Formats: sequence, structure tokens, C-alpha cells
Amino acid sequence: MSTGDENHGNPPPQAEAGGEAGYGDVKGGALFSTPWYGWADVATLEQSMAGRAVRLRGAAHAVRAVGRRVAFVVLRQGTSTVQCVVAAAAGGGDAGMVRLAAGLSRESVVDVAGVVSLPREPVHGTTQQQVEIQVKKLHCISRATPNLPISVDDAARSEADVARAKAAGEQLVHVGQDKRLDYRVIDLRTPANQAIFRIFRQVLLSEGFVGIHTPKLIGGSSEGGAAVFKLDYNGQPACLAQSPQLHKQMAVCGGFERVFEVGPVFRAEDSNTHRHLCEFVGLDMEMAIRDHYFEVCDVVDRLFVAMFDHLNKNCAKELETIDRQYPFKPLKYLPKTLRIEYDEGIRMLKEAGVHVEAMGDLNTEAEKKLGELVHAKYDTDFYMLCRYPSAVRPFYTMPCPDDPRYSNSFDVFVRGEEIISGAQRVHIPELLARQAEARGIAVGCIAAYVDSFRYGAPPHGGFGVGLERVVMLFCGLGNIRKVSLFPRDPRRLQP
Amino acid sequence: MSTGDENHGNPPPQAEAGGEAGYGDVKGGALFSTPWYGWADVATLEQSMAGRAVRLRGAAHAVRAVGRRVAFVVLRQGTSTVQCVVAAAAGGGDAGMVRLAAGLSRESVVDVAGVVSLPREPVHGTTQQQVEIQVKKLHCISRATPNLPISVDDAARSEADVARAKAAGEQLVHVGQDKRLDYRVIDLRTPANQAIFRIFRQVLLSEGFVGIHTPKLIGGSSEGGAAVFKLDYNGQPACLAQSPQLHKQMAVCGGFERVFEVGPVFRAEDSNTHRHLCEFVGLDMEMAIRDHYFEVCDVVDRLFVAMFDHLNKNCAKELETIDRQYPFKPLKYLPKTLRIEYDEGIRMLKEAGVHVEAMGDLNTEAEKKLGELVHAKYDTDFYMLCRYPSAVRPFYTMPCPDDPRYSNSFDVFVRGEEIISGAQRVHIPELLARQAEARGIAVGCIAAYVDSFRYGAPPHGGFGVGLERVVMLFCGLGNIRKVSLFPRDPRRLQP
Repeated sequence: MSTGDENHGNPPPQAEAGGEAGYGDVKGGALFSTPWYGWADVATLEQSMAGRAVRLRGAAHAVRAVGRRVAFVVLRQGTSTVQCVVAAAAGGGDAGMVRLAAGLSRESVVDVAGVVSLPREPVHGTTQQQVEIQVKKLHCISRATPNLPISVDDAARSEADVARAKAAGEQLVHVGQDKRLDYRVIDLRTPANQAIFRIFRQVLLSEGFVGIHTPKLIGGSSEGGAAVFKLDYNGQPACLAQSPQLHKQMAVCGGFERVFEVGPVFRAEDSNTHRHLCEFVGLDMEMAIRDHYFEVCDVVDRLFVAMFDHLNKNCAKELETIDRQYPFKPLKYLPKTLRIEYDEGIRMLKEAGVHVEAMGDLNTEAEKKLGELVHAKYDTDFYMLCRYPSAVRPFYTMPCPDDPRYSNSFDVFVRGEEIISGAQRVHIPELLARQAEARGIAVGCIAAYVDSFRYGAPPHGGFGVGLERVVMLFCGLGNIRKVSLFPRDPRRLQP
Repeated sequence: MSTGDENHGNPPPQAEAGGEAGYGDVKGGALFSTPWYGWADVATLEQSMAGRAVRLRGAAHAVRAVGRRVAFVVLRQGTSTVQCVVAAAAGGGDAGMVRLAAGLSRESVVDVAGVVSLPREPVHGTTQQQVEIQVKKLHCISRATPNLPISVDDAARSEADVARAKAAGEQLVHVGQDKRLDYRVIDLRTPANQAIFRIFRQVLLSEGFVGIHTPKLIGGSSEGGAAVFKLDYNGQPACLAQSPQLHKQMAVCGGFERVFEVGPVFRAEDSNTHRHLCEFVGLDMEMAIRDHYFEVCDVVDRLFVAMFDHLNKNCAKELETIDRQYPFKPLKYLPKTLRIEYDEGIRMLKEAGVHVEAMGDLNTEAEKKLGELVHAKYDTDFYMLCRYPSAVRPFYTMPCPDDPRYSNSFDVFVRGEEIISGAQRVHIPELLARQAEARGIAVGCIAAYVDSFRYGAPPHGGFGVGLERVVMLFCGLGNIRKVSLFPRDPRRLQP
């Protein structure tokens, strides 16, 4: 509607360039088009474009004035930066434009129209080093407040750099996690954050799964009790879903063979750890199984190996960017994921002198230790632990047919931390009721759940995984708040 | 782990077939493998497979016994059905197996192992008419309760059939919407429902948008007031997000040029209509714009035309299936979506004798009527209405630069009903504060929102759309509850 593409890309005739001031603040919301200057992206500028007239919109990442006649503006888009030269001498520029440039506050959004040129020497400190922009027009679209609460450079600094400077007696600003989250719109602009959230994409959908959306508002006060957010729903007691467990199972019982969901999961737990959030993004799947619950493990295997392969192949640049601020070792995983049995894991821990209770749950330290042992023995950071004791799994877990003290269940670990819990579910109403009772759960409270299996139910299983935890562990980041766009923990509800 | 693929597909030697009973109820959760019989799908059986030994798991859709020596079981998987013949005479079957078949309750999940054969005449009433299964082994995996609250056949009947039968003096069961939702696991098994939810897939992700997940738990009690679900968050007042508006704008201000989210949206409205839900699946997007808010309209245009094309091309079978139970006219849309201005819409309505207030909002009837007028004049069911008066849009809507009584905003309509609301947002803190004040909104209450734009903010715009409404209107379904897997309305929190 607004820009025709004709005339773009060639430098404007001299008359046009001098015809108006060509710089200033844009007041109000009116945008404008610049004939002759075609929209371009900082990331894709290259030497072959020398002489081309381009228009760029981005953030004023850094500004430096050299006397009254020249100013340099580093323009940033996403993770890419380019140097823009504003000179009073060059045709089209005048002293007023240099003043405007020199006075730009950092992070202001500016429009630059100019000509791509080749600097005599490579530019330092920008991602574009072989090209720069000779500015003809300069407009400030949005002025940032001069005293930013945090600067992008400070927020982007690697912890190693801060430590090195300190050792050398220098003082470099280190931005703490809390302050980052308070000013998340600025913190998000760091290269590492730009990369982290671009990875966050589904690599699923291949094997005939149907994407579903289950309700987050649940009647009653759920099984959980304490860890549940309660609310009033038009006078009825309601709560927020702690997982799509019931509804994904119902979808399978409703004739959808394989379903998955990516959506919010709510936990009202008061866990102030590096790995817990009160609201996180869950990937849940559930599928009819034919012969054995290992069919679910097979999907986990194919899904995660494909996802890791995809990340390494297609997000190499993003991973590099993250590594620059938060160095990490690439994840080791096998083409066919290792599966070991719970009993074998216990044996390995005991042999290593770790005290673990037979048939008990593994605590976080034991899991971490087992991760090290598995890494040493099998050279992988990613594996499955199968056949957990029934006593440490939820009541709806199917016992092993050959020994009901064990269950058709598994956990999956990355770098010694659990990311996935999965199992075959009990699809037999009587067994389900019996197992609930054995744990002191009143069958009356879960009648609707048990009844779902009275109308014919296929054997089925599935798993749930917190996606923030996957990204955190894949990238070796030490805090889950780094991978959540706007994290919610027991103390934080803002921004 | 459990089944090797060798030996599958050939009929078993006679000795094996008679070696064990080969039928019965499967007790407990133990599954089992059947050598010689390879897993197959009902949908892909075909005549060329005659003589092949296959194993099928599905629901007993219908059961009919003919004396004591033959029983027919119609086996259903998704929307496909096949006739299975259980005969005492044929090798491998015996009278006990016929008894088991005859006694199967409808909807029980059964395992059939048998040989594909060609019936003398096409089978009636099944989707597979040229092949049937001669059953050798039969196991019941999950017994459905004999008195099902609703039957799949009744739930699958078209309203036209019920009406026809009534006119002919017959009585056919009609299952009301409420009863369907009470027993959703059965209702979901109808062919139309199987088709409706398989359509529900994203066709997005092409144009460089980053998928994000914004928090649903929001501090304070939100702008809305009445229509918001409130809850207690560790002693702090909190509410459920009525839209990702603030956070998607913050993501754009955080340096992500184009973002989208598919996630739950919560509205505590007491609207008992065919088109409102208290929890629905929102598709929200937000993008930096360069010259004009029509760039957002361009994305709507490309996105929805691609989605409609995709549905018509790749989901033809699902659409046919829906049409069989709920007949509808295919949606008419243009390759380049029609845009008309609000003023033009008002003119058309006035010319047609409809009373509308100048510069006022359109009510549902006026929208419906305008849809008819547009359809008559332009032959399309899908169009955009642009440049709404500022007074009828939210305070954060950018006014038109040439006339601030109008705004850079649009709505999108399908079959005369609004599905999308979109606009350029105000990225200038002072203007935003001014517009809020003019509507009596205390600036103090929205300080965090206004402050987001003080650190440099690109011009941006976006839209939100309720996906259930899109599917409902595309398929001409009269009630939004038909397209929500587990709907939540002011009265319904179950299942």
C-alpha cells in the first residue's frame, strides 16, 4: 500500500537528497516512506551491495561523536550490528544531522537511509565488519530514556569476562538475574537471549500425532491439593491444571491414537531452586500402545535425537552466540538412546559407594551422580532409566506384568537432571480404583477419571516434559529463569 | 523389543493356529505379541492384501450374531471400519470364540488376528467394503460398560437424518449438545469430531515468526476488571491473562521482530452464546512494522488464504466427513483478501436501510448484514474492515496520522462474524498515557505497560484470533462447543 518497490536500491539523484532536511525526530505515530531507499536487513548486508541505497530500522546500540562534523552510530537488529557514518561533509548530511546522531540515547529506535560502502579497514566491534553505511537521512522513531536501568552491553557480558576484569583490578558491571528480569524488555535484547528463544521451536509433528489443546481451568480442587492454584469459577470451585494428564488420556480414549500438546502447566509449589517454575511450558504426549510401553520410549528416542540433531545442524549460530556469553560443553548423546533399568542404576550407584534405599526414589544428588557414572561408562549425557518401582510412581501407572512391584515407567535424564517422566497408564477401571485405594486416595474423588475407562479404552502411555528445562540443560545454562521469556517463580509475578 | 517383524504377514501354519485357545479376555495390563500376524491399520487394508495375516486393534463398533456358529464384529479405528467374521467352522475358530464375539459390548477395545479376505458381495455400512477379516484369534483388551450413556451411532447421526425420520413417523435418537459434552470421550469418537480436531493444526511459521509462550499468571488484577479470573499467588493478588497483548508487545520491544503464540486465553464473561467460551485457544501475533499497518493486514491475508487453501487441498476427506453430519457450504474467499474501510461499510449498511450510528461500533446483527452485502457485491465470505473510529477501539490503538478520529485498526470477518481484531499499537509513551487518561484509565495502574516503551520501541502492530471460532465458521458449524475438545463456558467446567 505504502511503498512501491520501483526506484529502490539506486542512490537518489542529488536534487532529491538535498530537497528536504532528511533528519529529525518523528513525532506522533506517522510513518513515512523513503523513495529510492529500499528496506534492507543488517544481517544480510554484504560487500556486493556497495553503492546500493538502503533503509534500515534498528536500535542505536552505541553512539560516538568525533568533533562536530562526524558521528558513528552502531545500529542493531536482533544479533546483528553495523556501523553507520553520519558526516557533515558527505552530500546530504549536514551539521544538524550530526548533532541529532550525537545526541541519540542508547537503545533509541532509529531509521537510517544511506548508501552501503566499504570501509578502508574492517570495522571493530560490530558483526558487519566489511561494510558500513554512509548516512543520508536519519530519523529517530522512538527515543529511549537517557538513563537506562540496565545496558544491553552490561547484560550481554559473559561471566568469565567479569571475573577476568575483577582479577585484573578492573570493575565491570555484572547484571544480576533479578535485575535482568525486572527489565526484561532490555535483557531480551542481548545476543544470547535472542538465540535462546529462537531455538524454542517444535521439531515434532512428524509421526502422525495430532496437536490438541486441553483446558487449563479444571473443576474441583484437583488431586494435588497443596501445589494447585485455586480460583472461583462463576461460584464453582476450580483450579489450574497441573498437567494435561487426564485430558490427554481422554483424547486417546476418544479415538485419537496419538496426541500431543504444548501449553502452560501450573504448579503452586514454593520451590526456590534453579530448576523449578510456577508456570512452565509443558510438552505432553499420549499414545495408544500395541505390545509394550517401550513404544513410548521409542518415540522419546526418535523425537529428542531428531531435536538435538536439528539444533546442532540448524541453530549452530545461535548455539555459538549462547556459548559466547554462557560457555557450555556440547551435549553428548547416542544415535539410539541408552536405556538402563532402575535396578541396574541402583547397582551402579551402590558400587560407587553412594547410599541409596532399595526400591526408593532417587534424590537429586543421586540422579546427578548416576549421570556421571553413565557418562563415564557409556559416553552419553542423555539416557533413559526404565522399570521404576511401582511404589515411587503415581497410582495410575501400569505395573509390570511379570512383577507388580515394578512398573512400566521411565524417566529421561539430561546431564544428570530429570527432564521427562513417562509410563504406560492403567486403562482397567478396577485396577485403577484398587491402586488409588492402596495409596489412600478416595475413589469417590477420582470417579470421573476412573469412569473414562469404562466405555472401552485402548492400552496407552505417554510422557510430559518441561521445555524450559530441556533448553536449559541442552545449553548447560545453570538457571531456568534464563530460558523462560517472562518467568514466574514463587516470588516473581512481574513483568 | 517385543515384536520381531519376521514371519509377519503370512498365514500361520495350521498346527500353530490350533495350538492354543486363541481367544478370551485379557486380564490385567499384560499385552502380548502374535507371531505370524503383523500389525495393520483398518484405513489402509485393500484387496491386494487378500490372504495376508494381520492384527488389528480397535473398538467393537457393532456386533451381530447369526445363530451359534457365526458372529460379525465391525471393528473401528478413527473414522475407518471393517467387518470381521468369527465363524466356528473356519479353521482356528471355535464355538467359544463365537460366544465371546457375540457377547462383546459395543465400544469394547478388541484385538483381532485374522486373514484378509474378499467378500462375495461388498459389505454394507462399513468404510471397507471390498475386504473383510476372517478371524483366527480374538481378545478383548478393554470391556466397555454394557449400558453406554450415549452411542457413537446416535452421536454421529446428522440432524437432517433425525428430522427425516421424524417426518416419516420414525423415532431416531438425537443426542443434545450438553449430553455430548458430559460424555465427551464417547462423543469424540464420531467421524465428524475425528475430522474437526485433525484440522486444528498450525499452517503458520513460514515468514520468520518466532513462536513464544507468554505467562498466563499476571500480577495485579489486570485492566479488564469484571471479565477476569482472579486468584491468590503466594499471597499476592493475581489473575489469568485475558490476552497476551502486553507480553507479545514486550517481546517485540525486546528485539524479536515477529512473534506469535498459540495458547489459552481466559475470559470470565457470563456470555452464554453460540460463539463465546470462557477459555479458548488464541492465536496472537505481533510484529514490527515499517511503513504502514497494512503490513499486518498483509500477513493476515497471506496466512489465512494459505490456511484455507491448505484445508481445502489436504483435509478434503475430513471436510467431507464433517459435511456428512453437519452439511455446510464451502467458504468463499478471494486470492487477495478484500479490504474495505469502515466508512464504506457504514455507507453500504445505510444504503441497505440498516440503522447504524455514525462513528459507532457495529453490533452482531449489523456485522451479519454487512457480511451478506459484501457477499452479494464481492462474492466473498472473508474480508477485512479497516480504519475503525478511534472511539470504539482500545486506548493503545494508534490513531490515523491524517485524522485522529480514525485509527490504524481492522477487524476480519468470516461469514459475517468477526474472528480477528488487529491494529497498530501506540509505541509513544506520552501518547499512550494521554489516550488512557482520555478514557478514564488511571495512568498509575498501567505504568509498567507505558514504561515498556521508554527504552526505545519500534512501531509495531498485531492481531488476535480465537481458533475455535475460525474452525467453527470455516466449517459453518453453528456452535463453538462443537470445535472445542473440552469446552469451558459459564456453566461448564466438566469434563
